[in-house]
Amino acid sequence: MKENNPREFIPEPVLRRLPWYLAYVSMLRDKSVKHVSSTNISRELNVDASQIAKDLSFLSIKGKTRIGYDVSSLERELRDFLGFRRSHNAVIYGVGSLGAALMQDSGLSRYGLNVVAGFDINPDLIGTTPGGVPVYSVDELDSRCRRLRAEIGIITVPVDHAQDAADLLISAGVKGLWNFTPVRIRVADGIVIANTSIYAHLAVMYNRLDNLTSQI
Amino acid sequence: MKENNPREFIPEPVLRRLPWYLAYVSMLRDKSVKHVSSTNISRELNVDASQIAKDLSFLSIKGKTRIGYDVSSLERELRDFLGFRRSHNAVIYGVGSLGAALMQDSGLSRYGLNVVAGFDINPDLIGTTPGGVPVYSVDELDSRCRRLRAEIGIITVPVDHAQDAADLLISAGVKGLWNFTPVRIRVADGIVIANTSIYAHLAVMYNRLDNLTSQI
Repeated sequence: MKENNPREFIPEPVLRRLPWYLAYVSMLRDKSVKHVSSTNISRELNVDASQIAKDLSFLSIKGKTRIGYDVSSLERELRDFLGFRRSHNAVIYGVGSLGAALMQDSGLSRYGLNVVAGFDINPDLIGTTPGGVPVYSVDELDSRCRRLRAEIGIITVPVDHAQDAADLLISAGVKGLWNFTPVRIRVADGIVIANTSIYAHLAVMYNRLDNLTSQI
Repeated sequence: MKENNPREFIPEPVLRRLPWYLAYVSMLRDKSVKHVSSTNISRELNVDASQIAKDLSFLSIKGKTRIGYDVSSLERELRDFLGFRRSHNAVIYGVGSLGAALMQDSGLSRYGLNVVAGFDINPDLIGTTPGGVPVYSVDELDSRCRRLRAEIGIITVPVDHAQDAADLLISAGVKGLWNFTPVRIRVADGIVIANTSIYAHLAVMYNRLDNLTSQI
């Protein structure tokens, strides 16, 4: 059996498909299904079966001929491999509507994200606790991040503050940035950045919807 | 001047880059900068200048030699082109932590998304108004969606309900689905689907962070 090594560099497309398989096997486990083959997964998710077998080969789990994968082992292995079972401390920079919303999204903790603090410059927000998470002044960013061992900084500020927020988080010791602004943040080597520009997804959807209408 | 036709099918990579330019020119406008060249944008966003000129050629705006683009016109054109200035009625299916969070994110309306209702099966949630948006029983989905002229359905349910939610929304007349679950939803032709799997982004970030650590 291959040693499960979560530190191996896994290609992004693989890391983006694995959560699909996880969602599907979690559903099967809920339905008390015991085994699943890559052919089953393929049919359900519309991904090539050989692609699935290849993706799952990064894990230490092996399917059995004619039986397939054990559903609960596969689910556990996927969660583990994706880092969802370890807790990663994160802080939120910018407790506006989206920031506060993320602080209230308890679902994130099921995916290994432990939001431990929020930071803002607005005195009306400092001292509040959306979703039970305390909001501090940005002045306390450095000391709080270090004390809380924050590994990830979530950036939910207006666009004109995004780069500054990133710089401050990095100097406070954060190694990963989850950027929800549409700004292209520049960081030095050794810092990981994930961009989730939900508004870009909206732009794509609007264009496709307009296109539908014009086809009718 | 080219007629601005928002119904033209625009390639997804272009639609994903345009919001970066919009974020940047909004920032320039805030700083009272009057003109910007594609070279300026290129330097700031680390995108090839010729790519920027090509992307912006989809708009009806033209830059002037040696002066560049007029900042406020470019901002307005981008917002317009991306559909952010029109209001698109949307409903949220699943008022759990993420659904309720999105209902409270007033920022979405600045990007043209008008969340008019939420739906849930939980009697404790029905009748509440997170972010001022009413939550109704799923039983009322069809009639409410039609009356509210909901164009977009936002799916924020547990994975085992994602496909059912999609089917119900589509039969209630919704044309676009914004899927926040990691489930691969299957839809018929003529339905637009945008997948925002924020947990997949987390998986990528965790793997890259582990990789950093192992390099040190």
